[in-house]
Amino acid sequence: MKNIIDVLIESVKEKQNPTVIGLDPTYEMLPEYIKKKYPQTIEGTCEGLLEFNKLIIDEIYDIIPAVKPQMAFYEALGVKGIEVFEKTCKYAKQKGLIIICDAKRGDIGTTAERYSSAFLGKTKIGNVEENIFDVDFLTVNPYLGLDGITPFIEDCKKYNKGIFILAKTSNKSSGDIQDLKLENGKTIYETVVNLVNMWGKDLVGENGYSSIGVVVGATYPEQLEEIRKLLPNGYFLIPGFGAQGGKAEDIARGFDKNGLGGIVNASRSLICAYKSDKWKDKYSEKEFAKATRAEALDMKEKLNKYIGG
Amino acid sequence: MKNIIDVLIESVKEKQNPTVIGLDPTYEMLPEYIKKKYPQTIEGTCEGLLEFNKLIIDEIYDIIPAVKPQMAFYEALGVKGIEVFEKTCKYAKQKGLIIICDAKRGDIGTTAERYSSAFLGKTKIGNVEENIFDVDFLTVNPYLGLDGITPFIEDCKKYNKGIFILAKTSNKSSGDIQDLKLENGKTIYETVVNLVNMWGKDLVGENGYSSIGVVVGATYPEQLEEIRKLLPNGYFLIPGFGAQGGKAEDIARGFDKNGLGGIVNASRSLICAYKSDKWKDKYSEKEFAKATRAEALDMKEKLNKYIGG
Repeated sequence: MKNIIDVLIESVKEKQNPTVIGLDPTYEMLPEYIKKKYPQTIEGTCEGLLEFNKLIIDEIYDIIPAVKPQMAFYEALGVKGIEVFEKTCKYAKQKGLIIICDAKRGDIGTTAERYSSAFLGKTKIGNVEENIFDVDFLTVNPYLGLDGITPFIEDCKKYNKGIFILAKTSNKSSGDIQDLKLENGKTIYETVVNLVNMWGKDLVGENGYSSIGVVVGATYPEQLEEIRKLLPNGYFLIPGFGAQGGKAEDIARGFDKNGLGGIVNASRSLICAYKSDKWKDKYSEKEFAKATRAEALDMKEKLNKYIGG
Repeated sequence: MKNIIDVLIESVKEKQNPTVIGLDPTYEMLPEYIKKKYPQTIEGTCEGLLEFNKLIIDEIYDIIPAVKPQMAFYEALGVKGIEVFEKTCKYAKQKGLIIICDAKRGDIGTTAERYSSAFLGKTKIGNVEENIFDVDFLTVNPYLGLDGITPFIEDCKKYNKGIFILAKTSNKSSGDIQDLKLENGKTIYETVVNLVNMWGKDLVGENGYSSIGVVVGATYPEQLEEIRKLLPNGYFLIPGFGAQGGKAEDIARGFDKNGLGGIVNASRSLICAYKSDKWKDKYSEKEFAKATRAEALDMKEKLNKYIGG
């Protein structure tokens, strides 16, 4: 079986697009015509969000290789919200999209095993094994150390899945902990990157990249470049493009000379494109997903202008 | 309204017990008679786990102040599992128990807001606001820095909730990141503790403790003592007692001279007490919850022997 990171890389190559679309919808983001179709309740909102996600997927599955649902947006709607997450993943998978679930889970060993079962592996019920969310990649928080990461890595090996471990996140305060300098002169994120380098060695695929990668924010171009050198076999999940301020020329610094090495996430700038000054006159509210497609094509062009290959 | 940390402290005082019971059940932990009642499926297991949790709650609600469901164990069963989490919380709340949800969530600002809405605050749907899981306390991961923590703190203020921020976790590898020494000679966990000290200042209640506390493992007695001094206003959630190896005399080092300052979690040693050599001859499988009660009373006695007050 092809290593999942190679599946991702080949889809990036085929679609000539290193973009992942963040499916992080809220009630506020829904077009009025969808809001009006359903009651203004948790249940109604969930129906609206699922319709919203599906219509977006319909418009982008042929041009974008992967979707990144952010669990927080589904958890915020409780059990019904998790159902929307599950149905969105199933729908995206049917359309051939790779699922990167952004849940940033992390816990001690035995508990991390449960999270890993939920997202990457299977849950055992006696001698029966059941898939739960069964996504392709999961984001993982390294604060608990190796024994909190090992269960995920084990499942990556066993079930051909991947993880992106938080190294340098895109937010303003990411430096509060991640940039702290150790006695040995290294930063925390650098230390995490060195650990990931070790942890991912066994899982390097045919394109030279491991299915154990890192998260590095588009908002930190210098770190993108630095970490690219430190972690030549590590794929980057790069959030922070668009609404958060990351630019294509900055992001390019995280890529290798073949134009590989990262998958760039944009959420709001894509799924709310129909509300932007740029597109709102061109597409009606009912054509919101077409605005997403147009913005996605623009993003692809911008990225490819700077990313080699 | 009484600060939630004072509600917890007063329940600890009333029940003379600084214990929180970890409700982290799996199929394997269920007594055979419960396993047999339900089909060996996700749905059946979920029914079994809910029955298991409720029977335990019935036996301990008068002697233990709080329950700590660990989200990973519910997520591992998907949507149906989250339903069990929700129903368990509701049931425990009806019995007067305080809910400490162990989810270790952490993300960038706008996303952390969604997690906070799910667990502590409310989710807005236009002008409607809905409670989702509505627990009393949540565990939070600090790796993303202040803007990942702020939304939780805001909701603590607004809705009278509390959080425990991971400082020094109970697992073996917690030192991989948390013990690293900075240029200034301080460890990462110490740095987190100092940040928590600052973040929690506005939320100190009438017992001198803030509703913004920290997680410190029972397995690290020296750090318990060190952090108690560094964070005189910080309440500790102390996991790792029992199955993980933490002892009462060690834990006492995290408490103040009045016998306050921490809530000690035990999960497996309590909920699986009926399987232990200590209790299995005394209680039949059908009396599993009575074994939990007996072990909880033993734990209480052990803790109170060492904890002053």
